[in-house]
Amino acid sequence: MDRVKVAILGGSGYTAVELIKILLRHPHAGIAAVTSRQDEHVADLHPSLLGRLDVRCEPFDADKLKAKGVQVAFGCLPHGMSMESIPQLLARGIRVVDLSADYRLRDPNVYQEWYKETHHDLANLAQAVYGLPEVYGDYINSAKLVANPGCYPQTAILGLAPLVARGLIEPTGIVIDSKSGVSGAGRTPKQAYHFPECNESVSAYAVGSHRHTPEIEQALSDIAGKPISVIFTPHLMPMDRGILSTIYATPMRPVMEPELVELYRGYFAGQPFVRVRTNPPATKDTAHTNFLDLCVKTVRSKVLVIAAEDNLVRGASGVAVQNFNRMFGFDERTGLL
Amino acid sequence: MDRVKVAILGGSGYTAVELIKILLRHPHAGIAAVTSRQDEHVADLHPSLLGRLDVRCEPFDADKLKAKGVQVAFGCLPHGMSMESIPQLLARGIRVVDLSADYRLRDPNVYQEWYKETHHDLANLAQAVYGLPEVYGDYINSAKLVANPGCYPQTAILGLAPLVARGLIEPTGIVIDSKSGVSGAGRTPKQAYHFPECNESVSAYAVGSHRHTPEIEQALSDIAGKPISVIFTPHLMPMDRGILSTIYATPMRPVMEPELVELYRGYFAGQPFVRVRTNPPATKDTAHTNFLDLCVKTVRSKVLVIAAEDNLVRGASGVAVQNFNRMFGFDERTGLL
Amino acid sequence: MDRVKVAILGGSGYTAVELIKILLRHPHAGIAAVTSRQDEHVADLHPSLLGRLDVRCEPFDADKLKAKGVQVAFGCLPHGMSMESIPQLLARGIRVVDLSADYRLRDPNVYQEWYKETHHDLANLAQAVYGLPEVYGDYINSAKLVANPGCYPQTAILGLAPLVARGLIEPTGIVIDSKSGVSGAGRTPKQAYHFPECNESVSAYAVGSHRHTPEIEQALSDIAGKPISVIFTPHLMPMDRGILSTIYATPMRPVMEPELVELYRGYFAGQPFVRVRTNPPATKDTAHTNFLDLCVKTVRSKVLVIAAEDNLVRGASGVAVQNFNRMFGFDERTGLL
Amino acid sequence: MDRVKVAILGGSGYTAVELIKILLRHPHAGIAAVTSRQDEHVADLHPSLLGRLDVRCEPFDADKLKAKGVQVAFGCLPHGMSMESIPQLLARGIRVVDLSADYRLRDPNVYQEWYKETHHDLANLAQAVYGLPEVYGDYINSAKLVANPGCYPQTAILGLAPLVARGLIEPTGIVIDSKSGVSGAGRTPKQAYHFPECNESVSAYAVGSHRHTPEIEQALSDIAGKPISVIFTPHLMPMDRGILSTIYATPMRPVMEPELVELYRGYFAGQPFVRVRTNPPATKDTAHTNFLDLCVKTVRSKVLVIAAEDNLVRGASGVAVQNFNRMFGFDERTGLL
Repeated sequence: MDRVKVAILGGSGYTAVELIKILLRHPHAGIAAVTSRQDEHVADLHPSLLGRLDVRCEPFDADKLKAKGVQVAFGCLPHGMSMESIPQLLARGIRVVDLSADYRLRDPNVYQEWYKETHHDLANLAQAVYGLPEVYGDYINSAKLVANPGCYPQTAILGLAPLVARGLIEPTGIVIDSKSGVSGAGRTPKQAYHFPECNESVSAYAVGSHRHTPEIEQALSDIAGKPISVIFTPHLMPMDRGILSTIYATPMRPVMEPELVELYRGYFAGQPFVRVRTNPPATKDTAHTNFLDLCVKTVRSKVLVIAAEDNLVRGASGVAVQNFNRMFGFDERTGLL
Repeated sequence: MDRVKVAILGGSGYTAVELIKILLRHPHAGIAAVTSRQDEHVADLHPSLLGRLDVRCEPFDADKLKAKGVQVAFGCLPHGMSMESIPQLLARGIRVVDLSADYRLRDPNVYQEWYKETHHDLANLAQAVYGLPEVYGDYINSAKLVANPGCYPQTAILGLAPLVARGLIEPTGIVIDSKSGVSGAGRTPKQAYHFPECNESVSAYAVGSHRHTPEIEQALSDIAGKPISVIFTPHLMPMDRGILSTIYATPMRPVMEPELVELYRGYFAGQPFVRVRTNPPATKDTAHTNFLDLCVKTVRSKVLVIAAEDNLVRGASGVAVQNFNRMFGFDERTGLL
Repeated sequence: MDRVKVAILGGSGYTAVELIKILLRHPHAGIAAVTSRQDEHVADLHPSLLGRLDVRCEPFDADKLKAKGVQVAFGCLPHGMSMESIPQLLARGIRVVDLSADYRLRDPNVYQEWYKETHHDLANLAQAVYGLPEVYGDYINSAKLVANPGCYPQTAILGLAPLVARGLIEPTGIVIDSKSGVSGAGRTPKQAYHFPECNESVSAYAVGSHRHTPEIEQALSDIAGKPISVIFTPHLMPMDRGILSTIYATPMRPVMEPELVELYRGYFAGQPFVRVRTNPPATKDTAHTNFLDLCVKTVRSKVLVIAAEDNLVRGASGVAVQNFNRMFGFDERTGLL
Repeated sequence: MDRVKVAILGGSGYTAVELIKILLRHPHAGIAAVTSRQDEHVADLHPSLLGRLDVRCEPFDADKLKAKGVQVAFGCLPHGMSMESIPQLLARGIRVVDLSADYRLRDPNVYQEWYKETHHDLANLAQAVYGLPEVYGDYINSAKLVANPGCYPQTAILGLAPLVARGLIEPTGIVIDSKSGVSGAGRTPKQAYHFPECNESVSAYAVGSHRHTPEIEQALSDIAGKPISVIFTPHLMPMDRGILSTIYATPMRPVMEPELVELYRGYFAGQPFVRVRTNPPATKDTAHTNFLDLCVKTVRSKVLVIAAEDNLVRGASGVAVQNFNRMFGFDERTGLL
C-alpha cells in the first residue's frame, strides 16, 4: 500500500517534532514536506531527529505542497497564523488536521472574545470538526478539516463526558484544577519558562481567563445537550510533559462510586485510548503514549474525576494521528501503540 | 542574654535538619541535645551540617535532658511516638513544640478515626494549643505544649480564615486542591518517592482520606464558630519543597475581588509572615522562608484562594520557631527573616 | 511470519518494562511469559502497561517456558541470580540475552574480584558473547548466550573504539567521567535515590571502584589488541534517564580535529545506531531511542570524546533487542526506530 | 554600630537577589540603593523579596550613590558594563566588590583574547585584588576593588591549591570536569535554558573555550609559582544551583590517599568555609551555604579531587559578602552561617 503523503506546517516546535516521531513509525504515512520560516534541516532544529528524517524545511507554499502530492497537512502553527495557511490547502483539496485553536470554537464571537482576534475564515470554520475521537468520531472520519483538540480540554471533556451525558451533575460550578508540564507552553523562551524560574516551583496562571475554557464548555454542552459552565484553573508543574486534571462536580442525586465506575466503563467501552481505572493515575503512567487515564471517585458531597495524559502525545500529536487514521480509513490505533 | 536551651527529639528527618539550620541562626536559642535511635553524629546523618553543629545524637532520656537544663523540646518524631515521649518532658517542666500530629486534634475520637490509633495522653491533649500563630497567637504565648500545625492545613486554614470568619462562604463543599513537594512525605525511602517513580510525574493521593482533613476542619470551625467541611485532595509534585493550595469556595452573596483583597489585607494586618498579593504566588517565592503568600480572586460563581508556602519552613520548622519565639517572649520574627 | 516467542525473566524492574514496551512494537516478537517472584499482573507492577499487555507474572520454571515454546529469554535479573536461571534455559535450547553482569567478564577471577562472588557457571561463561553489536556483531548473530553490555560501558567503549583500534592514544590514564540519570540505579527504593536526597543534587559515587571498570577495559583491550586501563568516575544526575560520558585521552602524536571526525565517521560507517556529530550531544537528543551520539574534539593536549545515550534503551533494553534481531536474522533496526 | 551602607549595581539577576537575601541578614550592612535599568520596585523583580526590602530600583548615578553615603558597591552587572560604572565609584572613594569578570584577569591581553573586548580601565585593573579569600586573604582586607571570583574557578582553584602549592602534580594536562546548575547561566531567557530543553538532560558546552579557563590558570599559577595549564569542561545539569567539579591530576611521584587528606586538612586549617571530607560531597550538602566541600582520592595513576559548592552563594554572592567582611574588618563569617 502506498503511504499517504503528509506535510507538517510549522516544523520548529514541540508538537511538530512529536508528530514527526510518531509518523516515522506509522506504516501508512510518509512525510513529504515540513514547512517553517527557519531555513534549516529538520534535524538541525531537532537534534533528536538526526539520522532519522532527511528533510529540509521549506517556506509554506500551497501549490508546491499540492505538486508534491501532499494529501493531508498537520498544522502546527500558532493560532492566528493557521487561518492564513489552511484555506489555501483546503482550496486545493488537501485535508487538514489543525493543531492550533483557530477552528475549535464554532462561534466566531467566542473566538474573538477569548483570543482577541477577528476570525477571518468563517467558511472553513463552519465545516470544521472538533477532533476528539471519543465524542465526534464519525464526523472526523469524513472531515476535510479537523480542529485537533487542546491538551487541557481533552482531560476535562473526557473526564466529565459520562456525567454530563447522563445529566448526573450540576451544570454549573464544575471545578477543573489542572496541572501541566512546561512543554505545554511551547518552545519559545520566556521568563516564566526559564529553567531556574519554573523548576522547583508550582504556580497557577491565567486564573479565570485561560482560552481553553470555552473549548471545554462547547464540547461538554454538546454532550449534555444544554449549557455547561466550568471554573478552569491551569497550573505549571516542574516537568517536561504530562497533564493531570482533578475535577470536582456536584451530583444532582446521591451517587455511589461503583455506579460511577460502571458508568465510565460503559461509556468508554471500545475506545482504545481511554483507560478507566479504580486507582488515581499518575501522569507518568501515560507518558509518551496516546492513553488518557481516568479515575472517578466520590468524596463527601462531590464527585471527583482524575484524568491524566501526555500533553504532547494524547494532548496534541498523538490524537492528531488518531484523527488522521480515522480520516484515511486506517485502524484508529495505527502507529500509536 | 543567655540562650534558651533546646532539645530536638528525632533528629534524623527533614523537619529536624531544617529546624537545626534555623536555630543555628537564632540569637537566643542554643541546641543542647538532639535525640535519635541512630547513634551517630548529627553531621553524619545530615552532611549539610558538617562543621556547623558538633553534636552527637543521644537516645531519648527525659531525665538527662532535664539535667542538661533543656527548657524546651521540639518534637520531630512520627505520630504515635510523640505521645510516648512528650508527657515525660512536660512532667519535668520542659515545654514542648510538637511537630507530629499527636496533639493537634482536640477530640481523641477523631484522632482514633483518622490515625487508626487510640490516643493515650488525654491529659496533655486537653491542654495542648494548636500552634497556628495567626489564629491562636495569644494561647501559644503561654502554652506548655504547642501542637505545631500540619503543612497542608496552614495553607487551607489561613487561605480561608477571612472568608469563614466573616461567614462569606458556604460552610460545606469547599474544595482544597493542594500540591506538595516530595519532602513532605518524609525521609524514609519508599517506592512512591523513589526518584524515577515520582520525578516527571504528578499524581493525587489519599483522595478523600488524608489525615490533614479533620485538622483543617477543626481550625476553620473554630474561626467560623460553626462546622465547616472541606474536600481536600493532596497531590505529589516533582520538586523538593513547596505547597500550593488552590481553594474553591461558593460565596453566600455576590462578592467583588477588590472587596475580598481588602478583607484579606485587613485580616492579616500586623501578621509578619502572611503576604497578601494580587497576583498568584509561585511556591518558589516562598522557598526557604517562613512566609505564606495568599491571593484571592473571583472566577464566575466561585471565590478562589491560592496559598503558597515552603512545607519544611513555614509548614513545619519555621512556624515551630515562630511558636518558640512567642512562648519565650521573643519577637515572633527572630531568626526567621 | 510467526512471531518469535520470548520470555522476560524478572519483570518488575525498569529494564523489563522498557523491554516490554519495545517488544510490543516489534513485528516479529511475541511476549509469551514474564517471570517474577511477585505474583501480580504485569500491569499492576507497571501501570503504564495497563491495557497493553495482558500477562500475569509467573514464577521462573524452565520447563514451563520450554513447554510454552519460548525461543529466547531476556534476563532482567540481578547479577548472581542470572547465573542460577540461565543455565537451565540454555540446557533446554532456549537462547538468552542476559542484561545482568554475570556473563560479561570472561575471566571468572575478575568477576570474583569486582562482584565479590564466585562465578559458578563457567561452562556457559566460556561461550557467552559480549553483546555490543558495533564491536562483536558477527559473534552475536550465532550466539546462544549474549551478555548484554552495561549502560556506562557502551558509551566508553564506543567512544574510545576508533582511537584504541588505531593505537592513537596512550593506553593508560584514560579518564572517563560519566553522568547518569537515576533509573540506572534500579527500582528498589534506597536512601540515595529517595527523591529529596538526589533531586537538585549532583554527586560522584563508587569512585575508583565501579564494577563497570573491568568491563570497559576488557572490550577496549580486545579492540586495541593490548591492555587498556581507565579511570572511570560515575556521577548521579537529577533526571530519570540518560548517560553522558566525557572522555579524556592523551594522543600518542599530534592530532587534528578533522582527522578524528573522519576517523570516527569511517569507523562507524554502516552502523545504524551510532551518530557521529560535530557538536556536543545532549542526553535528551538520544532519550527514548537506541541511538548513541558521539562527538570528538581536541582540547590542548587532550582528545575529548563526548558520548550520550539513553541508559534504559541503548544502555540496556534497546541494545538487547538489537542483539535479538541479529540472533534471529531480522534487520538490526527492527522495532527500534 | 552603624551599618555599612551598601549599593547593589544591576539588581535584576540571580546574584543580586541572592546577595540581597544575605545582606538582609547581615547585622552590619544596610542596603542603601539598588540600581537597574528596570524602573521597578525590587520586590516586583524578585517576588521572593516581597515585604522584605522596600526599595525601588534607580538608574546608576555615582554622584547620587555618594550623596547617599554608600561606602561599598557590589557589582552585579554583565562583564563589559562593569568597567563602565566601577571607575566612577572608585573615583568617589566608594569601594567595590565586582562580581563580573572585568577585573579578574590581570593581563588585559588575556581578557581581550577570551572576552573578545578591549579592556579600557587598565588603571583600576592594575590595583584589583582577586577575591578568593583562602588564597588572597590579606590583599582583600585592604583592597579598594575586589574582583569576586567566578563560580567554576573557585572549585578548581581550591580543589587544586594544596597540590600545586606543594608541586605534587604535573603542571599540564590537568582535567577539570565541572557540572553546574542552570542558574549559573543567568536570568535572561534563552533557548538552551528553556525548561523543556535542559530539563531531564545533561550536556557539555563551551568545550575548550570557556572563559573561566584563564582565570583558573592565573590563580593556580600564582599558587604554584610557575605556569599551570588545565583542560576545563563545563556541563549543564538539570537543577537550579550547585557546582560539582571532578578533577583529575597526575602525581609527580607516588602518593597515598591519607597523605593527601592530611595535606588538604593542613592547607585549609582555619578556613571557616572549606570543609575537607573523606567521602565524596553532593552539591546538595552545600546548597544555600557558603561552604565549599573537598574530597581528595587516589585512583590508579591519578589524584582525584571532588569539589562541591552552591554556585550562587559560595560561587558568587556569599563569597562577595565574605570579601566585604574582610574589607570592613568584620569576622569573615558574619551573615554567612
